[in-house]
Amino acid sequence: MRLSIDAMGGDHAPSIVIEGMARALKEFPNVFFLLFGKEASLTPLLKKHDLFRFKDRFEVHNTDEVITADMKPTVAIRRSKNSSLRLAIEAVHKKDADAVISAGNTGAFMGLSKLILKTIPGIDRPAIAALIPALNGSHTLMLDLGANAEYAPSHLTQFALMAQIFSEDVLKRNNPSIGLLNIGAENPKGNIAIQTTAQVLRESSWIKNFQGFIEGDDLLVGKFDIIVTDGFTGNVALKTMEGTYRFMQSALKEHFSASLRTKLGYLISRPAFKGLKTAYDPRKYNGAVFLGLNSPAIKSHGGTDAEGFYYALRVAVNTVENNVNTHIVKGIAHLDTLNAAESRTLKSDDKL
Amino acid sequence: MRLSIDAMGGDHAPSIVIEGMARALKEFPNVFFLLFGKEASLTPLLKKHDLFRFKDRFEVHNTDEVITADMKPTVAIRRSKNSSLRLAIEAVHKKDADAVISAGNTGAFMGLSKLILKTIPGIDRPAIAALIPALNGSHTLMLDLGANAEYAPSHLTQFALMAQIFSEDVLKRNNPSIGLLNIGAENPKGNIAIQTTAQVLRESSWIKNFQGFIEGDDLLVGKFDIIVTDGFTGNVALKTMEGTYRFMQSALKEHFSASLRTKLGYLISRPAFKGLKTAYDPRKYNGAVFLGLNSPAIKSHGGTDAEGFYYALRVAVNTVENNVNTHIVKGIAHLDTLNAAESRTLKSDDKL
Repeated sequence: MRLSIDAMGGDHAPSIVIEGMARALKEFPNVFFLLFGKEASLTPLLKKHDLFRFKDRFEVHNTDEVITADMKPTVAIRRSKNSSLRLAIEAVHKKDADAVISAGNTGAFMGLSKLILKTIPGIDRPAIAALIPALNGSHTLMLDLGANAEYAPSHLTQFALMAQIFSEDVLKRNNPSIGLLNIGAENPKGNIAIQTTAQVLRESSWIKNFQGFIEGDDLLVGKFDIIVTDGFTGNVALKTMEGTYRFMQSALKEHFSASLRTKLGYLISRPAFKGLKTAYDPRKYNGAVFLGLNSPAIKSHGGTDAEGFYYALRVAVNTVENNVNTHIVKGIAHLDTLNAAESRTLKSDDKL
Repeated sequence: MRLSIDAMGGDHAPSIVIEGMARALKEFPNVFFLLFGKEASLTPLLKKHDLFRFKDRFEVHNTDEVITADMKPTVAIRRSKNSSLRLAIEAVHKKDADAVISAGNTGAFMGLSKLILKTIPGIDRPAIAALIPALNGSHTLMLDLGANAEYAPSHLTQFALMAQIFSEDVLKRNNPSIGLLNIGAENPKGNIAIQTTAQVLRESSWIKNFQGFIEGDDLLVGKFDIIVTDGFTGNVALKTMEGTYRFMQSALKEHFSASLRTKLGYLISRPAFKGLKTAYDPRKYNGAVFLGLNSPAIKSHGGTDAEGFYYALRVAVNTVENNVNTHIVKGIAHLDTLNAAESRTLKSDDKL
């Protein structure tokens, strides 16, 4: 297997990229790495981690151009020609590599991936999928986390099918359960697009285990293996989780530093905080997959460290190793059936 | 001022309703309460809290019919004829009271309020607005939290105007800043509806302080006075906050009971947890307003206690006292201008 890495993307690149790759070199002996970035910056790092002993397992493709995190995606895409990100994606397109990984500019990465790799025929749009933790110790695959701010029910049914395949192949879930994010008591019907999607998912014989709706307060409960939503709602939900987590961390910190007693309490309670941190370490959830492209593209969080980047590489390894894309291509043969069912549903709605 | 109360709505009704009213009777000497519910249940509670000494400040309207929390809103509305909820709303419609408060079935309350009170002419749809806490010690008015699962940009601009009025009148904010919930790096444009809304808010001279977009991870930071979103996204975001909060509470509990040391740490740290609980006590944020109806309707959380219900009553008192509805009626005179601006925007979009 060959993985193509944008070595310059991310807040702490390239150092965390090389350190993450160092671990991956040891743990995945069958993987060859293509590094795209400034050779002058990469060489000292490769030396520092003593990686030239693996010199037959990676190669450096020198380029000085970098797409920064703060560049507007439209501008970044236009000016991307020799950037490490674009070259890393092109390597996959040219079949030089099996998947691409970047911790860089998300909008540019998504835009360039669509442009260069293109979506699998039959899939209208790629979706961003990632794992979120669950209280029961398990985790949940959620998508779309931001690729599509506009959507039709057929997109969500495609997302559900791709997630089902990913969940079976990579996460080894048997008959993975699927929930559709909706709103609750205030408006129990949701909207027409959600109702239509639910009906299609219920009727489809290719979606094996659709369990109905789920609300925002149950996202972290581990109720289902997969949560399907549109990119607007999914992005807001994911970021709201992050924001609430940060809110509580800050609030805890504030109240634990309020007095000598609480400071002492903190010292004694340290194993609890440490255990908590380990159990829900966001680095372990790093690595969002752009599902639906002709080759896998994996987005690492921009602010992650070496361990987090290693986890993103691991997602790439598992995605390639388990032939997720081949299975999606096979799976979409069924999508025509899905879309036909949806057209029927929409027509019968029109009659109401 | 006269407030109409559905005494039977909520998980712990009517006891928490009467106890909450007991506090309100003392704190708001100018308020008269109309209680709708089973007199046989209410009388003992009124005696228990020694409220007959205020007997000239409330009256009980006996009815045995109750809409339960688990009834489907459509069914509840159809069978609502003599229910405490419907009678409480009708009292407002008949000008017997200035506002209605219920902790009951949200869908039924919203549905019946729209049906009986109707929306203010010029406002297309009511929105659910409530306060959320902010890390900086302040709080933020957020809407719509679930009334509208489908929307057009004109609805969001109406929500922004109503929130601006509520924020000035009730929350006494000077020149309240408004943020529009959008998604971020993954798709920096959001969708067309959001872009159109932003353009209208920017151009409008009636929206005084529109500050642009806000993402999910900043909802609890206190960045703006007001956050505007559609009911689908808003409901998911609010419930995701609740779910993440519960997730962290459970996780903390689990890790603090892991060993003798952490249990001891918990005992010593108790003031920190207590301080945290007091600072962000959800009861203080209880009382969501249905904005845009001809009279104010205030929804209390179904699971709240007496103190929480008191806070919902306080929201009702402040809303009536500050003539929020009169100001919205005046404000919507400007909405024609807003809508015209929006039509222009949409037309110029068509040309692209």
